[in-house]
Amino acid sequence: MKILIINGPNLNMLGRREPEIYGDTTFEQYLASLRTELGDMMTIDHFQSNIEGELIDALQRADGHYDAVLLNGGGYTHTSVALRDAVAAIATPVIEIHISQPAAREEFRHVSLLAAVCKGSISGFGLASYRLGALAVFSGNTPK
Amino acid sequence: MKILIINGPNLNMLGRREPEIYGDTTFEQYLASLRTELGDMMTIDHFQSNIEGELIDALQRADGHYDAVLLNGGGYTHTSVALRDAVAAIATPVIEIHISQPAAREEFRHVSLLAAVCKGSISGFGLASYRLGALAVFSGNTPK
Amino acid sequence: MKILIINGPNLNMLGRREPEIYGDTTFEQYLASLRTELGDMMTIDHFQSNIEGELIDALQRADGHYDAVLLNGGGYTHTSVALRDAVAAIATPVIEIHISQPAAREEFRHVSLLAAVCKGSISGFGLASYRLGALAVFSGNTPK
Amino acid sequence: MKILIINGPNLNMLGRREPEIYGDTTFEQYLASLRTELGDMMTIDHFQSNIEGELIDALQRADGHYDAVLLNGGGYTHTSVALRDAVAAIATPVIEIHISQPAAREEFRHVSLLAAVCKGSISGFGLASYRLGALAVFSGNTPK
Amino acid sequence: MKILIINGPNLNMLGRREPEIYGDTTFEQYLASLRTELGDMMTIDHFQSNIEGELIDALQRADGHYDAVLLNGGGYTHTSVALRDAVAAIATPVIEIHISQPAAREEFRHVSLLAAVCKGSISGFGLASYRLGALAVFSGNTPK
Amino acid sequence: MKILIINGPNLNMLGRREPEIYGDTTFEQYLASLRTELGDMMTIDHFQSNIEGELIDALQRADGHYDAVLLNGGGYTHTSVALRDAVAAIATPVIEIHISQPAAREEFRHVSLLAAVCKGSISGFGLASYRLGALAVFSGNTPK
Amino acid sequence: MKILIINGPNLNMLGRREPEIYGDTTFEQYLASLRTELGDMMTIDHFQSNIEGELIDALQRADGHYDAVLLNGGGYTHTSVALRDAVAAIATPVIEIHISQPAAREEFRHVSLLAAVCKGSISGFGLASYRLGALAVFSGNTPK
Amino acid sequence: MKILIINGPNLNMLGRREPEIYGDTTFEQYLASLRTELGDMMTIDHFQSNIEGELIDALQRADGHYDAVLLNGGGYTHTSVALRDAVAAIATPVIEIHISQPAAREEFRHVSLLAAVCKGSISGFGLASYRLGALAVFSGNTPK
Amino acid sequence: MKILIINGPNLNMLGRREPEIYGDTTFEQYLASLRTELGDMMTIDHFQSNIEGELIDALQRADGHYDAVLLNGGGYTHTSVALRDAVAAIATPVIEIHISQPAAREEFRHVSLLAAVCKGSISGFGLASYRLGALAVFSGNTPK
Amino acid sequence: MKILIINGPNLNMLGRREPEIYGDTTFEQYLASLRTELGDMMTIDHFQSNIEGELIDALQRADGHYDAVLLNGGGYTHTSVALRDAVAAIATPVIEIHISQPAAREEFRHVSLLAAVCKGSISGFGLASYRLGALAVFSGNTPK
Amino acid sequence: MKILIINGPNLNMLGRREPEIYGDTTFEQYLASLRTELGDMMTIDHFQSNIEGELIDALQRADGHYDAVLLNGGGYTHTSVALRDAVAAIATPVIEIHISQPAAREEFRHVSLLAAVCKGSISGFGLASYRLGALAVFSGNTPK
Amino acid sequence: MKILIINGPNLNMLGRREPEIYGDTTFEQYLASLRTELGDMMTIDHFQSNIEGELIDALQRADGHYDAVLLNGGGYTHTSVALRDAVAAIATPVIEIHISQPAAREEFRHVSLLAAVCKGSISGFGLASYRLGALAVFSGNTPK
Repeated sequence: MKILIINGPNLNMLGRREPEIYGDTTFEQYLASLRTELGDMMTIDHFQSNIEGELIDALQRADGHYDAVLLNGGGYTHTSVALRDAVAAIATPVIEIHISQPAAREEFRHVSLLAAVCKGSISGFGLASYRLGALAVFSGNTPK
Repeated sequence: MKILIINGPNLNMLGRREPEIYGDTTFEQYLASLRTELGDMMTIDHFQSNIEGELIDALQRADGHYDAVLLNGGGYTHTSVALRDAVAAIATPVIEIHISQPAAREEFRHVSLLAAVCKGSISGFGLASYRLGALAVFSGNTPK
Repeated sequence: MKILIINGPNLNMLGRREPEIYGDTTFEQYLASLRTELGDMMTIDHFQSNIEGELIDALQRADGHYDAVLLNGGGYTHTSVALRDAVAAIATPVIEIHISQPAAREEFRHVSLLAAVCKGSISGFGLASYRLGALAVFSGNTPK
Repeated sequence: MKILIINGPNLNMLGRREPEIYGDTTFEQYLASLRTELGDMMTIDHFQSNIEGELIDALQRADGHYDAVLLNGGGYTHTSVALRDAVAAIATPVIEIHISQPAAREEFRHVSLLAAVCKGSISGFGLASYRLGALAVFSGNTPK
Repeated sequence: MKILIINGPNLNMLGRREPEIYGDTTFEQYLASLRTELGDMMTIDHFQSNIEGELIDALQRADGHYDAVLLNGGGYTHTSVALRDAVAAIATPVIEIHISQPAAREEFRHVSLLAAVCKGSISGFGLASYRLGALAVFSGNTPK
Repeated sequence: MKILIINGPNLNMLGRREPEIYGDTTFEQYLASLRTELGDMMTIDHFQSNIEGELIDALQRADGHYDAVLLNGGGYTHTSVALRDAVAAIATPVIEIHISQPAAREEFRHVSLLAAVCKGSISGFGLASYRLGALAVFSGNTPK
Repeated sequence: MKILIINGPNLNMLGRREPEIYGDTTFEQYLASLRTELGDMMTIDHFQSNIEGELIDALQRADGHYDAVLLNGGGYTHTSVALRDAVAAIATPVIEIHISQPAAREEFRHVSLLAAVCKGSISGFGLASYRLGALAVFSGNTPK
Repeated sequence: MKILIINGPNLNMLGRREPEIYGDTTFEQYLASLRTELGDMMTIDHFQSNIEGELIDALQRADGHYDAVLLNGGGYTHTSVALRDAVAAIATPVIEIHISQPAAREEFRHVSLLAAVCKGSISGFGLASYRLGALAVFSGNTPK
Repeated sequence: MKILIINGPNLNMLGRREPEIYGDTTFEQYLASLRTELGDMMTIDHFQSNIEGELIDALQRADGHYDAVLLNGGGYTHTSVALRDAVAAIATPVIEIHISQPAAREEFRHVSLLAAVCKGSISGFGLASYRLGALAVFSGNTPK
Repeated sequence: MKILIINGPNLNMLGRREPEIYGDTTFEQYLASLRTELGDMMTIDHFQSNIEGELIDALQRADGHYDAVLLNGGGYTHTSVALRDAVAAIATPVIEIHISQPAAREEFRHVSLLAAVCKGSISGFGLASYRLGALAVFSGNTPK
Repeated sequence: MKILIINGPNLNMLGRREPEIYGDTTFEQYLASLRTELGDMMTIDHFQSNIEGELIDALQRADGHYDAVLLNGGGYTHTSVALRDAVAAIATPVIEIHISQPAAREEFRHVSLLAAVCKGSISGFGLASYRLGALAVFSGNTPK
Repeated sequence: MKILIINGPNLNMLGRREPEIYGDTTFEQYLASLRTELGDMMTIDHFQSNIEGELIDALQRADGHYDAVLLNGGGYTHTSVALRDAVAAIATPVIEIHISQPAAREEFRHVSLLAAVCKGSISGFGLASYRLGALAVFSGNTPK
């Protein structure tokens, strides 16, 4: 089983900025521990870009080659019709991931353009949101 | 470890209505299988009511007696300031659960009044959303 | 043939308050006259509660036991997603009833959350709105 | 007793278009059966136009010559202040009729400019909405 | 002279939660001190429920048996048309009470559905808001 | 103890206009009776102006010289960011006073720009709203 | 000098409906007195229709044949882009006339689609609004 | 007969600024010519201030001493609840005057807070709007 | 092959008004040149009316007798639910045509009620928009 | 004559996804057939990118080197002020192309930020929308 | 060279209130240091008022007597059409100054009515915003 | 001292397009003159991209290597949550720069998503806005 984590803008800064909020773990460190824990169950690839269109490219490339995509759209979550269209266009199920609770932040983060076309959404569990997303895929619980 | 599932209005109809959408598993059947799977890790209690205030009562009673609450507010998710206040008032962490993706339904379901005060949100995985919520609690991943 | 009238909040005050607007007939008196007139055609049961969740309970209990429900949601008409979900969840047809014309009152009464899932709506005819609802059922005119 | 049915734009197409939605009964056929059923109680006249102003003309002419008007404003229901003014200007009571449930269709059909000045509204019962409107008049239930 | 305090959802948690905001006085303790101070002037009854419809029931029962009701609707203040209707339906004057200043909190608390039908509103004085409400009644200052 | 009443635009017309609504008591007459009643407890000064900026001047001058200000902002309540800033800028607690219930009037009166920065709000008790405000100050009930 | 009065929907009912609001003078009677008073200064023609498109036809025909048009668009004032386009399309200056003050009526009457393309607007003076419009033309005060 | 013209903010700049739009006539020059023309019929006083509250003061002073007030509120037309209240508070009829067509300018000028409480409104005729207002008063056409 | 051009309000003024914007070609002249160019491929009929309902009549009459309709709804494009219903009701494909770019004009022209039910839309090419519409039909490119 | 087709996000998926909606023709296949048909008239270049800024780059590079650009902005159509600015900044005329009718899809697709600065718009004709755009350019019908 | 600083409501409180936010420098102290630094380049006058209309008076008086005005409208920035009109009415360029970033405060501070008519805007640099404004004028960088 | 200017989409076209609006100076020419003037005080680097994500990359790279960033986000200013997040994520102070006054252009340019997280904003001074930004940094006036 094979999944792809796609991280959007500014998520490369995790562990490097605002540690009092986001902790001091980088995503690479977290990913290593996740692979250690779940390595028997699945292969986990990772792609990050700050460029909206490269996220779209990555989604298109993933189609048919992964069992699922875990997508943290970052700031594009709330503004990108193009990213939504890419999610809708591919057959591979996509799960929406957020580290924090967008609903507890500024009003322009309260609406996700992605959720309606994602198979499921997980938010607010810190980095563990990714782990839950991976478990959701493993258990075959991505809805039909 | 001990968690409480609180189900809001109409969730007692699961498996009894619209099986082509919701499947033909009742929540009681699902709960039994969940207890079988996770019984070694945790005790899972369950409360359901169609009455908004009884959901508030249940949240208040749970405070201090459970490690976490999994709350599926049903239709009250989008309209109840009182339920939100109850979640905010208790110290026990509450995780928001939805079976479907509300963002893919009518516009009045796109905003959750509960999310901002919940520790995390999981939606769209069918009944498995509850399982993921339980796993989130077990792994200690409810954010501080 | 068997129908159930479900009356929401404050409708137990009919005939007891603001008689210059609502007249001095209580709902019980009206119901008696309705049963007299239509008793040959149908049995008419009646349930009233000020509690939103009890209205949902009543709708769920009615499912499969009545030919139709006449539902006057009162103030919940404009705010209750949960009540709407209950109407949508049952197979028994529900007809929306209002004594006055909500569109002629405050703006927050201009939108009904219930109408879209009811089989038909009748408003503005005073207590006779119930009688027309009963006739609609009797004539087999509840749309499929 | 004498009532006038005024049908607005596109209602002349009933039975001629989209029969899977509207059935294959033309309004003339329906009217004939309605006259047969209710002929002893009342005379039923009928006027149809696609022209907003001709509907206004018809309402003005009806004033004082009919016991009630059953008005299906079609698409003008949601846009015509002028038609609303005409309903408000005449003494003859007007009952708003809709074949379908506008609240279950596009959002721009959710608000009726006519309802606030009509004596009552009946929607969603198919062609039987007209019959219920006629019965409402006959029973003297048009509110004062 | 006899007044009834009706407290809505979560107000039973006063003194038990978030003491840094709400203090550590329970409502029962406050009520005792209020009765001590004002006992010569008036009898003060108290009713609390988390259930919207039970608040409506309480308002209806109070009608004619109290000189005034002090109503803290809690979270229902901002969402309940049904509660507003109950206030409007009874002859006993109702005074709206809030412990905090809703206008200084989230935007969905800025509009009160109750204020327009209450005889007066008092907010922001902490528990003393109730005392001011009682004094308003005692001095005969509830406007006609 | 010393308080200042600041009255905004058109409040100098009290008792001189629309007596059927506002009564025929001028504010000066009311103030005299208030001083008679409360003279042992507190000194009450009074300032009125129709000019927004003079109300701001008065608030600034009051800072540090009064125990509290009772502010009836009149029409500026709903439009003046500058008045709100003045309230927020001074250390003396300010209590918002309204004679009528703004929520029961036109929609543009439903939002108060002042409430969020005032220590408390009292509305709807007629002129007695001022008296309740004074009692609130006297009892030390202005929240910290 | 020659002017044309164009009256829109329902204005043919003046003096025939709601005399307590609109008086019992018909427009024809008013027009006769206006011609008597102003006959030395100008010829006044009159056209009325309930049909939006006939008002547009009339505006187009008037172009170049009158010194000015006095247009009371009735209910179309607030909804008709087509009527606005017709006013903008002709060279003859058009003056917007209203008998009542639309701003004092329902909110959907607060915006006029016509005003921005009319040379001037006069409202609220009863039938005398037409006389003022005629005087505006006579004095050469229609702005360039 | 005696009328008062009240001019609001920036109207003292007429004829001194943007002559290509407003012409090069000052208001004083226009007033002189108006007094020459209408001097036999009426006395015309004039007050101008840039200060909102002084306009309110002037309206209050005018009450009972003039047959009518012609009020050009300038920029306060669209923002001042206080000015609206002053117009509503006095018995002397007030006529709203605008030199240009506010509806043809920025969107925030499309709504007048004053119109609903003024006896009539005249806009768009340049300085002649004042003359038409004076004629409206003279002819006794201010509506009751 | 046979197509019908339906032109809405004010389009009969083309070439007669505002030639600096719309040019000095009348629609009749343009139509003649279009027939000359495309006469071998198709017959082109033309109907124009300023009356909304006559446009609806024309659409209904066209049903089944033309291969396609080119509809320029003019000002009704943005306001007419009735016209939209007529387009939706007929089987003949309708193509929306605009001479200018409505999106570059006033905001109330930015939304077309017709587009959603038309087979395609062409705007901004001047009179050539009609020619492109005709070519679209000829090439069989009206989508299924 | 030389034109450039610029295709935005996800349009590289044409013919590869959702064939029941979009058909099974890839854009490259369609382009080949278009070049065959129109090769005598014009050279057609093609650029596609999922990256918003590369679309802007392409527009800037095209300036002065093509007679026209056919731009299908995909999801950026509804969100990109930057793309709009690029269209406005270049002298080469740009024609907006859409395969489907955006107005018939989700509400966030109903407004195009591009249309106001494009010379013309063509939507809804499937892939043939591009062909019509090319014909528009060839015939010299891009408006000045 | 000569510039005028106009400070609006509550800016006379600088250095006297909330020193943890605004520092403990009064505007007079800051002005003295600014004159010391820039005295060779320019004369700097200063006017402050809490009264909206006096700010308008000051702008009008400044016209033609200063090379530029630095205007900090305080709370009137967001509400005053009258102040905007005064800025637009004078020929002297006006530069908008803010000490803090209004966009980072409450939502009603996010829109400036003044910016569109000011030559430039500087915000967020603390008191140094004034110095930057002065430098902008000195360098001749006020745009034409 | 070292600053970085980051220019967003279409700013590479400066001096090459619409010279009547933007002048004929390219940004490179302006930058050269700025370096000449300010070269003794600071080093000025420059980065431009039309790609949103590359602007984010540049902001991230600048963190810790520059004393300040001058950011002109172009069209992304109004739409990019991702760019806002990047500004908020870095410790280096960012100053928002605009050549024109966005508030004087289309409504979708009236709100800046960037301003709330920038240390200061300067707009409307033409290219000199950059120079003022540099001076703000040099004087140590970027607020803490």
